[in-house]
Amino acid sequence: MKCSRCGKEAFTKLKRHNAAFCKDCFELFFERQVEGAIRRKQMFTKNEHVLIGVSGGKDSMALWYYLHKAGYKTTGVHVFLGIGRYSEESRKIVESFALSHGLSLKILNVADFIGHSLPEATKKLKERAPCSLCGSIKRYILNKFAVEQGFTVYATGHNLDDEAATLLGNVLHWHIDYLAHQDPHLPSPHPKMTRKVKPFYTLTEEEIIHYVTLHNIPFIPERCPLSIKAKSLDYKEVLNSLEEKSPGTKHMFLLGFLEKGKQYFAREYTPPLLRECERCGMPTTRDICAFCRILEKLRNQGVKNSAHSRSE
Amino acid sequence: MKCSRCGKEAFTKLKRHNAAFCKDCFELFFERQVEGAIRRKQMFTKNEHVLIGVSGGKDSMALWYYLHKAGYKTTGVHVFLGIGRYSEESRKIVESFALSHGLSLKILNVADFIGHSLPEATKKLKERAPCSLCGSIKRYILNKFAVEQGFTVYATGHNLDDEAATLLGNVLHWHIDYLAHQDPHLPSPHPKMTRKVKPFYTLTEEEIIHYVTLHNIPFIPERCPLSIKAKSLDYKEVLNSLEEKSPGTKHMFLLGFLEKGKQYFAREYTPPLLRECERCGMPTTRDICAFCRILEKLRNQGVKNSAHSRSE
Repeated sequence: MKCSRCGKEAFTKLKRHNAAFCKDCFELFFERQVEGAIRRKQMFTKNEHVLIGVSGGKDSMALWYYLHKAGYKTTGVHVFLGIGRYSEESRKIVESFALSHGLSLKILNVADFIGHSLPEATKKLKERAPCSLCGSIKRYILNKFAVEQGFTVYATGHNLDDEAATLLGNVLHWHIDYLAHQDPHLPSPHPKMTRKVKPFYTLTEEEIIHYVTLHNIPFIPERCPLSIKAKSLDYKEVLNSLEEKSPGTKHMFLLGFLEKGKQYFAREYTPPLLRECERCGMPTTRDICAFCRILEKLRNQGVKNSAHSRSE
Repeated sequence: MKCSRCGKEAFTKLKRHNAAFCKDCFELFFERQVEGAIRRKQMFTKNEHVLIGVSGGKDSMALWYYLHKAGYKTTGVHVFLGIGRYSEESRKIVESFALSHGLSLKILNVADFIGHSLPEATKKLKERAPCSLCGSIKRYILNKFAVEQGFTVYATGHNLDDEAATLLGNVLHWHIDYLAHQDPHLPSPHPKMTRKVKPFYTLTEEEIIHYVTLHNIPFIPERCPLSIKAKSLDYKEVLNSLEEKSPGTKHMFLLGFLEKGKQYFAREYTPPLLRECERCGMPTTRDICAFCRILEKLRNQGVKNSAHSRSE
């Protein structure tokens, strides 16, 4: 198999692009995709300091590696969730990567914010799916940190597979509001919120695996053990089975949405009015923000549990 | 397992409705679904004469059976496609069903309209997928027959699985025009076109199988041998795998679209201007209708082939 670009021996075939690439040309392809996304969606420039959410997984590690290599100013931020060995390993990976590449990194420990590790919190608040609870807590902690430190842009490693799976969930449920604002670049809706960008939104999971392999980028290969029942995994699975039969399906679905579908929902969408949380002052659509409501539930749960213990 | 309605022994469990039914209560459930669809979507009344497209498959046979049993005036119309034993069997089923139930039936032979059986036509026009070619030809033949005979409404057995699969294809491709007018009741857009209705759009394939089994309704169990590569089968497969994990997914997806999603596309949709085909006078958006263009291609293919034979 020859490289479609230079004719050298190819190391991978990308069916959806109907192309094979040698290592050098794959790198060129990959980096052009990222630069194209950053430019097309006006995500950030080299004059800005980009905060990157680094979980230690392949996507965020590849993003951190690439943005640093390409000369962007970056700081990594890692939320330590306290999910046993999985979290310990993830933290080690981001710490040693930062050290060996001379990168700036901040570790935020979820327990410092909610008084519990994530597994403890999910046990206390059984009515919430773990991924939903974790998402709410991480979004708050990360945004608060970003705003307090003066970052204006927050980048994540979400890829084409992630975004297509989210989109599938949104159309299966016809979540109109989510459809109106799903985008690889979400502008800041409030002075106390950074804008959010996803420079990998045109790259598949498979392509990112090639990139981390090529550059020996360390990452934690396991999935978060609390996410095994996540619906997004079902959506990824069915999109992969369609992709297998019709290469390019995921790309067509997501990019087609952004170019043709989204506007129909966005046109009539009024963003919710944001005010400041009565307790913490961070932006919210209600009197008390989602994070402060979680804190309250955790406290009440503690009271209920101790009342329960006393009555036993 | 007890019937959720009357407490008798249940014969089937419908996970998506979180209910089990005995035979009598299942029948009640099934027929209420159909009557609800007919009434809610104002499909037709008992004063109208309904033309039903009967392929001989479970859906159209169940529809014919139910509408007749419920006292609607019906005529079945079957397009004989000439696909070997499959078509012979299908014709026998509809003919013997009509005879034994005293029903009116018209057989239209595709060869009388295009000079070829469907397999011959697909061989000649290789650039078209068989299901797409067959769809174009059948739509024309059936509509022409309906209009000439004075029918105002044409009903088909399309079920929830069919409609959800079509919808999935439409969102994966963001076919905006198709999304704007996908509906279980398509009003007539031209005096020479009947309106089209799908009374089974809320019932799953599985529920229809229960119904035909319960009433011993004859049907051809095989799928059309030319449809094995149809994309719609891939879409049905992935929707079934999601349904398996989250019962109700297909229902939520299709009904949610009709109630919440569709309006966003429909609002800005301008139906194409229909005029009359220069050759046959039937409605079309172009000078010459799709059917007459197929006829022309089949004729040209004949000329090409005989020129090719002469040159050999």
